[in-house]
Amino acid sequence: MLAVLCGDRHPPDMGPIESGAEIRYTDEKGLPEALRGADALFVYDFLSTAVPGAWHAADRVRWVHIASAGVDPVMFPELRESDVVLTNSRGVFDDSIAEYVLGVVIAFAKDLPRSLELQRERRWQHRESERVAGRRALVVGTGPIGRAIARLLRAAGLVVSGMGRRERDGDPDFGTVYASADLATRVGEFDYVIAVAPLTEQTKGMFDAAAFAAMKPAARFVNVGRGELVVTSDLVTALREGQIAGAALDVFDVEPLPADHPLWTLGNVVLTPHMSGDFVGWRNTLVEVFADNFARWRDGRPLRNVVDKQLGYVPSGQ
Amino acid sequence: MLAVLCGDRHPPDMGPIESGAEIRYTDEKGLPEALRGADALFVYDFLSTAVPGAWHAADRVRWVHIASAGVDPVMFPELRESDVVLTNSRGVFDDSIAEYVLGVVIAFAKDLPRSLELQRERRWQHRESERVAGRRALVVGTGPIGRAIARLLRAAGLVVSGMGRRERDGDPDFGTVYASADLATRVGEFDYVIAVAPLTEQTKGMFDAAAFAAMKPAARFVNVGRGELVVTSDLVTALREGQIAGAALDVFDVEPLPADHPLWTLGNVVLTPHMSGDFVGWRNTLVEVFADNFARWRDGRPLRNVVDKQLGYVPSGQ
Repeated sequence: MLAVLCGDRHPPDMGPIESGAEIRYTDEKGLPEALRGADALFVYDFLSTAVPGAWHAADRVRWVHIASAGVDPVMFPELRESDVVLTNSRGVFDDSIAEYVLGVVIAFAKDLPRSLELQRERRWQHRESERVAGRRALVVGTGPIGRAIARLLRAAGLVVSGMGRRERDGDPDFGTVYASADLATRVGEFDYVIAVAPLTEQTKGMFDAAAFAAMKPAARFVNVGRGELVVTSDLVTALREGQIAGAALDVFDVEPLPADHPLWTLGNVVLTPHMSGDFVGWRNTLVEVFADNFARWRDGRPLRNVVDKQLGYVPSGQ
Repeated sequence: MLAVLCGDRHPPDMGPIESGAEIRYTDEKGLPEALRGADALFVYDFLSTAVPGAWHAADRVRWVHIASAGVDPVMFPELRESDVVLTNSRGVFDDSIAEYVLGVVIAFAKDLPRSLELQRERRWQHRESERVAGRRALVVGTGPIGRAIARLLRAAGLVVSGMGRRERDGDPDFGTVYASADLATRVGEFDYVIAVAPLTEQTKGMFDAAAFAAMKPAARFVNVGRGELVVTSDLVTALREGQIAGAALDVFDVEPLPADHPLWTLGNVVLTPHMSGDFVGWRNTLVEVFADNFARWRDGRPLRNVVDKQLGYVPSGQ
């Protein structure tokens, strides 16, 4: 018996799974009822925050799979302390998000948003632009998405370092990885600072006033991780006061971003609606990843992408 | 005696050259007088079309250097048929233009212009986007700029072919190079078609109604070469009728593009004002390239970047 939290939009390609299990598709409201007696939960609506509130009804769930890389929506104490296995969709979004990040980096360097503005006004205004090659980028978050970003930025000529829990050298994708604890002392060396860390108690709000104040005034901040990595009001202040030169944000602490939020209208900001990883076909790929784990689960084989619930992400090498 | 066509804006860093020659800085109007008795001409104002009309006064010019990669503004019969040596600024713009091209490719794939539009309207509208890796790009023009574009697109995961005068295989940057004569039969295989050929009698207007009709409806056209490579009215029609999906244009047959030109307001078009190669410091680099050739000329050493005036560009291997 499988519960699928999906709202109105059912996942595609569920035929093979439907033939092997009884499935209850549900929206947030029906979740407690769907959980009662279910053996597993597929959180297809990965933006939903309804799982913790419905968990009391999960009387025999042994496995939860989430259709995203970040598992923060299901990182609540009852699940964390339980024996329930949690798996995620690691790998689906890596290369697409990396392309997005390289795209906004070049857009900043070449002043593309301003060109589009001038185009709307039919104004021909030559400007000089920046080179991309040789610029320094710090990728904060050393999971698979961060690694894909590092590889692609490096391929385009940027000089890349990483930032993770522990400082180390000789990483195949990052070379040097700095410790997150040293963010404020290291971040001033970089032209692009890219947030892609998992959201945990340790990373929540790590991009705060002190971090932005330590960045170069010419630096651009890119967030493709989670909105809550950032103290948004501090980011707004940093942009307003010119502490940093720009930001490209695909994630926000409240989504959808409210229409009256100051970020919408700040200069030098590129906003996208949590879509950087969502290439045409992503929903099918998400279901493929789930289907593979579902077959493993049914057969009693080891699952893929098992989250370390104390760390809050899938450890590397898994 | 050196004539420098530069208008109001003198080239920077001319000190070392000024100490070795008498220099006449001039605008278009004063060009005939400046040419009279001059031994060499530095066309710093590389967009000027004034050289052919003033050439009658060039009674002893032996060398013309132009501060651009394209030499079409000085490809007039009197210069072409003469013994005057023509050199260009090959190499200065290569990597910067390649970055611009990759930037607009990713911007199209990730629908960035639409995101900026929606942002202006404060509208949160999730969309799916395209992958970049695996898409096919045709780079029309196999000079140094085209090669830099090919290398960078390939580094970002695109599958790249070239198009030049002669068909050949095993090119280090392009793999296969198709013959320009086969444009209409080959172009339909590509997602991105990038124009960077030199403007010659053979390439003028090569992107015409037939070429656009042969492209995929999903194809994007990028022009970083010369506006006259394109029959602009055919491009406008192709965009209006959906024969192609978009265009990024940095060059135009009339520059600045007139305010009432239909290209300004067509959907799926990104316009930039002939700036794709102009990184911060480009003017200094252009003068460095000239200064190197000037020292060679004064010392009687062979010049760099000598244009084959019959071909209309610097042959590869030079």
